[in-house]
Amino acid sequence: MTTDDRLARVALCAIGEPGDPRLLDQVTQLGAPAVLDLLLSGHRIDDLQTDPDARRAALDPEQTLADATRVGLRFVIPGDEEWPVQLGDLATAPALFRRGGVPVGLWVRGPARLDELAGSVAIVGSRSATTYGADVAADLAAALAGAGRVVVSGAAYGIDQAAHRGALAGGGATVAVLACGADRVYPVAHAQLIAHIGAHGAVVSEALPGWAPTQIRFLARNRLIAALTSGTVVVEAAIRSGALNTANWANRLNRTVMGVPGPVTSAPSEGVHQLIRSQAATLVTSGPEVLESVSAAGEHLVEVRRGPVRPRDRLTTRERQVLDAVPAARAAPEASIARTAGLLVGDARQVLAALARHGLAEHVPGGWRLAALAREDQAAGFLDSGV
Amino acid sequence: MTTDDRLARVALCAIGEPGDPRLLDQVTQLGAPAVLDLLLSGHRIDDLQTDPDARRAALDPEQTLADATRVGLRFVIPGDEEWPVQLGDLATAPALFRRGGVPVGLWVRGPARLDELAGSVAIVGSRSATTYGADVAADLAAALAGAGRVVVSGAAYGIDQAAHRGALAGGGATVAVLACGADRVYPVAHAQLIAHIGAHGAVVSEALPGWAPTQIRFLARNRLIAALTSGTVVVEAAIRSGALNTANWANRLNRTVMGVPGPVTSAPSEGVHQLIRSQAATLVTSGPEVLESVSAAGEHLVEVRRGPVRPRDRLTTRERQVLDAVPAARAAPEASIARTAGLLVGDARQVLAALARHGLAEHVPGGWRLAALAREDQAAGFLDSGV
Repeated sequence: MTTDDRLARVALCAIGEPGDPRLLDQVTQLGAPAVLDLLLSGHRIDDLQTDPDARRAALDPEQTLADATRVGLRFVIPGDEEWPVQLGDLATAPALFRRGGVPVGLWVRGPARLDELAGSVAIVGSRSATTYGADVAADLAAALAGAGRVVVSGAAYGIDQAAHRGALAGGGATVAVLACGADRVYPVAHAQLIAHIGAHGAVVSEALPGWAPTQIRFLARNRLIAALTSGTVVVEAAIRSGALNTANWANRLNRTVMGVPGPVTSAPSEGVHQLIRSQAATLVTSGPEVLESVSAAGEHLVEVRRGPVRPRDRLTTRERQVLDAVPAARAAPEASIARTAGLLVGDARQVLAALARHGLAEHVPGGWRLAALAREDQAAGFLDSGV
Repeated sequence: MTTDDRLARVALCAIGEPGDPRLLDQVTQLGAPAVLDLLLSGHRIDDLQTDPDARRAALDPEQTLADATRVGLRFVIPGDEEWPVQLGDLATAPALFRRGGVPVGLWVRGPARLDELAGSVAIVGSRSATTYGADVAADLAAALAGAGRVVVSGAAYGIDQAAHRGALAGGGATVAVLACGADRVYPVAHAQLIAHIGAHGAVVSEALPGWAPTQIRFLARNRLIAALTSGTVVVEAAIRSGALNTANWANRLNRTVMGVPGPVTSAPSEGVHQLIRSQAATLVTSGPEVLESVSAAGEHLVEVRRGPVRPRDRLTTRERQVLDAVPAARAAPEASIARTAGLLVGDARQVLAALARHGLAEHVPGGWRLAALAREDQAAGFLDSGV
């Protein structure tokens, strides 16, 4: 009965549930028209999560597509120029929480194109974020946006919201992947934010337009966030946060998983700390570190911070030894300094002259003492820092 | 000329500097009396950091030992029953910052015995700690003390102080390893703390009694803290903190290195985050996690927190699917619920009955709605948590 691949996919979208692993696997194996024909001709496909007959009465893919177009949605399917090919990785990844598979298509509104999401970064996390977490998420998103990366998130309260806002503030594109239809908003309080994302980035969903968000659809949505992006940053996630589900998906899909640490006394950081501890995530603290992690080896390398170089850093061991023996205020004679340093007087004298040239020791009546530069170092308490 | 091993070691202690890798290596190879004979008979040992003749005039090991004993110090050397055998690992570890080697002996005061430091844990960190860092260090130390572990640190301001105090508050023994002589105190403001540690735990130094702390001696001291303990926890460390030097030593000695994360906006946590990021340290958040890390595989295992189990967790996919389709307030008829869930009415009816038995759905005039238990779950916002 069916002919057109796109219409078949709209129909399958209406018959099935997002991320039904068995249904999507069959579509990958046989193609959408063949699977739809099977289902409508009464053939059973074992282990489908919905019954093909349950939603059959209302099935009108042409009308569905026309209605969607009228409200500004496009239906992007595999083979379309806009199709994000990285979703192909879902075909072979094992199911997680009984979700999996390549979506039959994605409903999209907004100017951002899905085929430009290669290299994008997901920032996800707790809905009950702290101001610390929200600030860090917004800063990371702004930094990534500034580096030309699209920031993907789920438009939820807390970290998601902060990530979208940060990306927009950073002048970048941001994409919200929803668990409800792409024509709806969830949470309702984010209607304005989601409208703004739809106007400047894109709002995406695997669920049929008009559908409500359900737990199953949230789980299916999380896999899309992980699969669409090069890496997922988790900023605050309590022990049962959905962000950890996204991180699990990202790991299964060989995407980079990153976690932002926080105080160990903060419950919303517990889940992130677990991820890092179990080596399921790399610790990141800044936009450049995220960029380094999601980029090809050798690109966007972050220089490891080493702190300021001090005059003392350039000294030999012997020079340090003598400098350690020079008093700060009252001058000491060469013999006393040599004994303290464990060197002969002649050797110590030579080294003291070198230290004077470095501006670290000065010869005064009564012997030698530290010069201003060395006294500053000592006052700065570096004596026992020593790295 | 020399005879007694102990007196030879006192003399070498007075001639050399703590952690002089060449000197200590020679002592390990040839024994202390032979090395001392060589040095006093005018034979050169290349690359020594001090000149044997520089401090020779004042050399009187018997007097040094007697003076030390009078102020309550004992000199523990390899072969003594109290000698901490784990320091033997220093014999083969490569030098770091031109320090290395097994100490010729350790000056000790206090009732704690050095041979009981197997299984001890070092807690080190920034002198300019935040209250967050100090609180966490004290809590960890108290937890370790409570588990019978000795806490080792350096008696410095900040994290060190908090660690010692936490261990004492937890009723445990604590050991301070100093860069100055064990009869002195540094910093002076910690005189009382160090006296307390000396009375209830132990104060330890490789430096000759009376000697002042110098940068070289701090570096040598850091290697002892790492070598004496099973693992080192770094709680806050700025980029150039000496705690990172201790962590480097711990890694070289195959000890466990652990880091406590903090806010990425906090400079005193930067060094710790670098350690974790570069996989030079394991992230830890609690005393039990530290215990697990420093214990033999399979001992002191921490159960990974999973959060409370919710009634919904026990449901099948199909039950979740139907539960997702049941409205919270206004009841819906079975046919509508079935359509939303993508199931045939007969199947949906069976599942609804099961949900009612679980206390999650209730049959009311007009159809089905969520029961109180499920409404609570939904109100708790778990809908989009989903892990």
